[in-house]
Amino acid sequence: MGKWVYTFGDGSAEGDASQRDLLGGKGANLAEMASLGLPVPPGMTITTEVCTYFYEHDRNYPPELEAEVNAALDKIAASTGRTFGDPKMPLLVSVRSGARISMPGMMDTVLNLGLNDDTVGALAENAGDERFAVDSYRRFIQMYGDVVLGVEMRNFDEHLEALKEEKGIELDTELTADDWRGLIEVYKELVLKETGKPFPQDPKDQLWGAIGAVFGSWRNDRAITYRRLHQIPERWGTAVTVQAMVFGNMGDTSATGVAFTRNPSTGEKQLYGEFLINAQGEDVVAGIRTPQDITERARIEAGSERPSLERSLPDAFKQFREVCDKLEGHYRDVQDLEFTIERGKLWMLQTRAGKRTAKAALKIAVDMVDEGLISEDEAVKRIEPNSLDQLLHPMIDPKAKTDQFAKALPASPGAASGEIVFTSEEAERLAASGRPCILCRIETSPEDISGMHAAGGIFTTRGGMTSHAAVVARGMGKPCVSGAGGVKIDYAKGTISSNGVTLKAGDKITIDGGTGEVFVGEVPMLKPELSGDFQRLMGWADGTRRMRVRTNADTPHDAKTAREFGAEGIGLCRTEHMFFDPARIMAMREMILADDTDGRRAALDKLLPMQREDFTQLFEIMAGLPVTIRLLDPPLHEFIPHTDEEISDVARALGADPEKLKNRARMLAEFNPMLGHRGVRLAVSYPEIAEMQARAIFEAAIAAAQKTGAPVVPEVMVPLVGLKSELEFVKKRIDATAKAVSEETGQTFTYQVGTMVELPRAALNADKIAEQAEFFSFGTNDLTQTTFGISRDDAGVFLGSYLREAIIDVDPFVSLDTEGVGELIRIGAERGRATRPDIKLGICGEHGGDPASIKFCETVKLDYVSCSPFRVPIARLAAAQAALG
Amino acid sequence: MGKWVYTFGDGSAEGDASQRDLLGGKGANLAEMASLGLPVPPGMTITTEVCTYFYEHDRNYPPELEAEVNAALDKIAASTGRTFGDPKMPLLVSVRSGARISMPGMMDTVLNLGLNDDTVGALAENAGDERFAVDSYRRFIQMYGDVVLGVEMRNFDEHLEALKEEKGIELDTELTADDWRGLIEVYKELVLKETGKPFPQDPKDQLWGAIGAVFGSWRNDRAITYRRLHQIPERWGTAVTVQAMVFGNMGDTSATGVAFTRNPSTGEKQLYGEFLINAQGEDVVAGIRTPQDITERARIEAGSERPSLERSLPDAFKQFREVCDKLEGHYRDVQDLEFTIERGKLWMLQTRAGKRTAKAALKIAVDMVDEGLISEDEAVKRIEPNSLDQLLHPMIDPKAKTDQFAKALPASPGAASGEIVFTSEEAERLAASGRPCILCRIETSPEDISGMHAAGGIFTTRGGMTSHAAVVARGMGKPCVSGAGGVKIDYAKGTISSNGVTLKAGDKITIDGGTGEVFVGEVPMLKPELSGDFQRLMGWADGTRRMRVRTNADTPHDAKTAREFGAEGIGLCRTEHMFFDPARIMAMREMILADDTDGRRAALDKLLPMQREDFTQLFEIMAGLPVTIRLLDPPLHEFIPHTDEEISDVARALGADPEKLKNRARMLAEFNPMLGHRGVRLAVSYPEIAEMQARAIFEAAIAAAQKTGAPVVPEVMVPLVGLKSELEFVKKRIDATAKAVSEETGQTFTYQVGTMVELPRAALNADKIAEQAEFFSFGTNDLTQTTFGISRDDAGVFLGSYLREAIIDVDPFVSLDTEGVGELIRIGAERGRATRPDIKLGICGEHGGDPASIKFCETVKLDYVSCSPFRVPIARLAAAQAALG
Repeated sequence: MGKWVYTFGDGSAEGDASQRDLLGGKGANLAEMASLGLPVPPGMTITTEVCTYFYEHDRNYPPELEAEVNAALDKIAASTGRTFGDPKMPLLVSVRSGARISMPGMMDTVLNLGLNDDTVGALAENAGDERFAVDSYRRFIQMYGDVVLGVEMRNFDEHLEALKEEKGIELDTELTADDWRGLIEVYKELVLKETGKPFPQDPKDQLWGAIGAVFGSWRNDRAITYRRLHQIPERWGTAVTVQAMVFGNMGDTSATGVAFTRNPSTGEKQLYGEFLINAQGEDVVAGIRTPQDITERARIEAGSERPSLERSLPDAFKQFREVCDKLEGHYRDVQDLEFTIERGKLWMLQTRAGKRTAKAALKIAVDMVDEGLISEDEAVKRIEPNSLDQLLHPMIDPKAKTDQFAKALPASPGAASGEIVFTSEEAERLAASGRPCILCRIETSPEDISGMHAAGGIFTTRGGMTSHAAVVARGMGKPCVSGAGGVKIDYAKGTISSNGVTLKAGDKITIDGGTGEVFVGEVPMLKPELSGDFQRLMGWADGTRRMRVRTNADTPHDAKTAREFGAEGIGLCRTEHMFFDPARIMAMREMILADDTDGRRAALDKLLPMQREDFTQLFEIMAGLPVTIRLLDPPLHEFIPHTDEEISDVARALGADPEKLKNRARMLAEFNPMLGHRGVRLAVSYPEIAEMQARAIFEAAIAAAQKTGAPVVPEVMVPLVGLKSELEFVKKRIDATAKAVSEETGQTFTYQVGTMVELPRAALNADKIAEQAEFFSFGTNDLTQTTFGISRDDAGVFLGSYLREAIIDVDPFVSLDTEGVGELIRIGAERGRATRPDIKLGICGEHGGDPASIKFCETVKLDYVSCSPFRVPIARLAAAQAALG
Repeated sequence: MGKWVYTFGDGSAEGDASQRDLLGGKGANLAEMASLGLPVPPGMTITTEVCTYFYEHDRNYPPELEAEVNAALDKIAASTGRTFGDPKMPLLVSVRSGARISMPGMMDTVLNLGLNDDTVGALAENAGDERFAVDSYRRFIQMYGDVVLGVEMRNFDEHLEALKEEKGIELDTELTADDWRGLIEVYKELVLKETGKPFPQDPKDQLWGAIGAVFGSWRNDRAITYRRLHQIPERWGTAVTVQAMVFGNMGDTSATGVAFTRNPSTGEKQLYGEFLINAQGEDVVAGIRTPQDITERARIEAGSERPSLERSLPDAFKQFREVCDKLEGHYRDVQDLEFTIERGKLWMLQTRAGKRTAKAALKIAVDMVDEGLISEDEAVKRIEPNSLDQLLHPMIDPKAKTDQFAKALPASPGAASGEIVFTSEEAERLAASGRPCILCRIETSPEDISGMHAAGGIFTTRGGMTSHAAVVARGMGKPCVSGAGGVKIDYAKGTISSNGVTLKAGDKITIDGGTGEVFVGEVPMLKPELSGDFQRLMGWADGTRRMRVRTNADTPHDAKTAREFGAEGIGLCRTEHMFFDPARIMAMREMILADDTDGRRAALDKLLPMQREDFTQLFEIMAGLPVTIRLLDPPLHEFIPHTDEEISDVARALGADPEKLKNRARMLAEFNPMLGHRGVRLAVSYPEIAEMQARAIFEAAIAAAQKTGAPVVPEVMVPLVGLKSELEFVKKRIDATAKAVSEETGQTFTYQVGTMVELPRAALNADKIAEQAEFFSFGTNDLTQTTFGISRDDAGVFLGSYLREAIIDVDPFVSLDTEGVGELIRIGAERGRATRPDIKLGICGEHGGDPASIKFCETVKLDYVSCSPFRVPIARLAAAQAALG
């Protein structure tokens, strides 16, 4: 059996800061501070392993626990000279939760434990303040009653309010010791009535009750929700810290406060914090009294009249500043501190790494490198890659007044304002006349691409974080809010309604894709700025990472954006998006309707110059860099209209028989399009399509090279390959096309042919496929769909319950499933390299921009990751962190 | 470099019968016969490796080949005393193809090669028959012109016909030597005109032309199609055998014939065959003259007047019978022979294992065991498992006159006649009044199950071998013909049309699911009979195999059939089929419509007694055997109607609001149902469904055990598991239900909980999942869909071109893809056993009844295979063969 309890205090401790997993963040850092000789009230931490044991044994404790707790209490007694229930020197303690990662406000806390009808007198005597003592007792009954005994807080509040009304007063502070004493009796009766038992008087009983309540709170609804949102595993559990009480509310030489060693919002190197004289910690947070600034400088800057701690309690302040410096130097990071001053004496109650904005994080990291506190590598590791997203997009001005219309999923970050439009056509029309708009749709489909491009942002009422709208918007770097279930769009009436508010087309709204909020009207915004700190840190990251970072880009606009963000090539250019353009879709439909190869070739001949022009532009932007182009992937029915009316329109435009078009649509319809006639299967059925695309690519490569002088190496990617023979079939035709183009033009050029590994069969047979493929790009979107057997379009319905029931920790479409999909990548990389040691390996798909997934990619030594343009900086940083291990 | 040419003749040979891969079947057996000292005209075989070289080198030969061929010709010359072009003793040869597996009639043959304007005279002299010599020469020009020079046969025929017309005669035999001589000149002119070159006179040139033509014919259209149909790989190639000619047409002491050492249709131990006096081999096959029986016994039985070989040429017959006995004894199998008697001397031209009917194969194998010729194990290996299918179903009487209506895919074997019906309801109505019917549908869906049960057979115009209709029909053992593309069904008019013939509901048709034929009217049939030979052979198989054979059965009828066929339990009981029953689907829909858990439970309470009764019946039939029951698998929308009209009807029946039902249908609709909200995902969302099913299973197990005294061990199978945590979630509820049932009834029972491994992720994580699973059943239908990323319902469109282009050899839904799906099974089995060495492993799904797949299952040591009832004998035999290796 392990050790269940760790003590700390008096300049020493059994644990240290490295033991967060066992002692929780709070317990580990209290131990560390105690060992550093800082003033920490003595206490003990009951480990997270007890929490695990507790839930595995039907809420019972390990048999050894009681003895260990008692021994620790003896130690606290020895240090403080106080024992539980002692009529002269009673020990009072706080009981707090502490998980590996802070979950603020999610779990329960009990203060002042140890007070009872007897010890309250001793507290009064010790403190020389009777009112303080009885106030503490009634707070304790209230808190313990609520947290441990399950008597709702509002029951206590009712009695308190009644008393104040009876006395005709408004503030608690006006109540006397006698008033509190009377209320204590009322409270005790309330507890008896509600629980059938008297309020426990034995401090030990109180303690065990509180410990059980804290462990129990690990599984309260709030905590479960919080963990789900923050992807904190259930099994981690919480520790419980029991610590001798100190009081910031023992008169005017007592105080309590919170502070950061640097400004968490700007990163400026200034002590930053707030405090209250004669108060308990809860009061600072509760916001009933306005807190005071800690430093004189901050007070002056804020123009405040209330005295600073620096002025009010200069000795304690001086000591506190020394503690701050010591802790920052020790942890080599900004600290977020809680402290209490009891009658002039400083006590440290908590320290932890301070949460900060992305901007502050960059400044702090770069400053600390300049200060010699940390290395460049450490600076790189300090920045949460996803946090960079904040810096790349416009933001709602935090000071702006807003009128919330709806709140849904933050599907693609950034904010945008504009007129409401309900159709792609309308979006394009407004964009053409320079009027910003927000495209509002129940859901989007590939036909909406041009409208999504035209709009400033997208808002959908259906679909999750990985819906079509969300994925495409992130790809474009457009703000998107999706899945607003409660919002109703009526296309016919041209209205959108939420909570009784109805807006119509042309009304202005603002969406915040970083929070999922939608506001009525235009809301002021802040422009993104990439500071010098950003550039320096990214430079260090680029010097560190091993993997290249490419981008997924289908348009010159995306390609340019990505280059500005540091992309080193294109990892995925999806050619089908090019065909949805209204000018082109007609030729595409003509091809689909053609009766034979000749008819198809005729239609393809119309598409060829357009495709060539697309690629020429991309190749010019990516001069000298590699560009991976995926051959046509989606099933042909995606290009054909579905309703009878649309079919008639299209047939008219094509000069075709509507019945024929209808028939073709019926023939192309599929039960499971995801697993249907698409990818390489199209190229096998209609090799002329692949030939046209290959020709466009090679002709463009020549044209662009002549302009820029820096040729790209086009990588022709055949999608959805499962068999070597499939790739062989298509590669033969691509090679023949290359030969033909080279002969016709008299130009030579370099290219590669490879495949997207997005089927389990491809990964398993990577050794054979690598005989034909010069590169693999792991298409983890589809690989996730096939490995899990989950349709991304349909998964929303049940993935919710999976997360809720903790069957999965994280949506596998958001972060790579390393045990399943990752295992296939590992197998694919290994077998591919066995055949062709220098095979180029990359990842495209959503995971290429996800830091956790990028970390995995480093472990299997992929050559590059590819992600949407706005995630390129994130990927660069994440790749650097992954390389640092 | 290897050796390219193998000679044989004169009692010795360079090759032998084991070298089929190198020498082709024909060449290997000629070599073997020569070594046995049998009379074989001397010759040489150019190996299949030359064929491979030929195609890999742009139709050029290895440089050493010419010298090797010349050396072999010298050897033939030494043996026969004849050389090419010799004016006295010219050598004439035949040039024939010979693949590893016989491809009758698919490739080209040239006879009489070596004849030219000079040697024809020597032939006449040698034979003492001028007409014979010039007839041989004109045959040679005709055959060589057609096969080697590309002059179409009908050009020659036109001249021949013109000549006969001119002479006013009908039979070739009436033409004189002079007539032939004249025709030879006409033919030579024709060749000159068509090819621009004179007919080659140099026998060596003739030979190389013929060799090239035979190798070239490996890739003619007929051969390609044949290989595709018979799954013969392209890369095998053909050998070419060049052999000295012998002549069965040198007068009345010459003859040619074919024979089987036993009757290939009944298996009876009697020499069986046909011959013609004064004829070449081609004449026997061509059917212009009616051949004679070989034995006197056969002649008498057939009531023929034409003399037998036994009578006509008794010496040659005696020698031939000895050769037959020697070859059968040597090969220890029935031989299919070709022979020629040249002026009383017997020459053997071919021997190979004789093709035989399933019935004959059984009798021959069992007889040969009794004769001590082969062992029981060998007998087991001799039977092609799939051939047993012929014995289990009624067959169209081969002697019946038929009127073909259509021909499509042989989707499920057996024949059936009945009235045409177009709806399930109609099928049930007719069945209820005892009228056999054939259900004709464009395609079938799960709602047609009851109609398919009621009908005697199913005929669909869409869908392939693995369509819903085909799979379900095979499961039921019902004949089915599917995918009749050219046939039109008009539901509104109640008609079905093919090639201008229109039939209507009520008209009678007959379908043959073994051939894909559909006939107008009722065709007489033969009943299946399982002979004593069958029982004995299956007994040997059962004694040999390691794997158990279970069945996939959902109904008592299927379960009983399977037991009769020797099933040793149920490997897959699909519970959803039980819910499509009209009486139950309403309760099912009520459940789907329920707003909350309570509503669902109320509806499930109605289903519970029905489910329990289903299982009780199955458990009684399977007394003492294991039964695997799969929990509800399909997405719920399969139980809901789709058209507005049907929705209204159902809503009325349920007393529900049609709008609500419509809404629910809309919400349940999925883009990719195969990857949607189904399997274990349903059990996670609605645990109460799994609980109801588990309860029904356990209560039924108790009830059945009380009746039969031989309890089954129910194996509760959770489908579509990808994560250990999913299974854990459901298993907890199943275990709790078992505990509850046990407590309520006071009965104990044994059960297991396991999962279907049908997702790549499950196979890859089998080690973790096995912590929760007591058994795995590899669900290879879905595993194939996910591993390949191919929807079975949609694959028909492109799998055709895949087979045509030789991108795949065989439909992976028919025979297990061992490299992809099989790799996952191997990984799954290995990792599952690593965690739980005694984990029970099986396979369900279509592949469980496919011999090639069963062979694979033996290599990974699965414990059992499970297949549809009618495939149980096939699986038993295939499992035995697999065990024999």
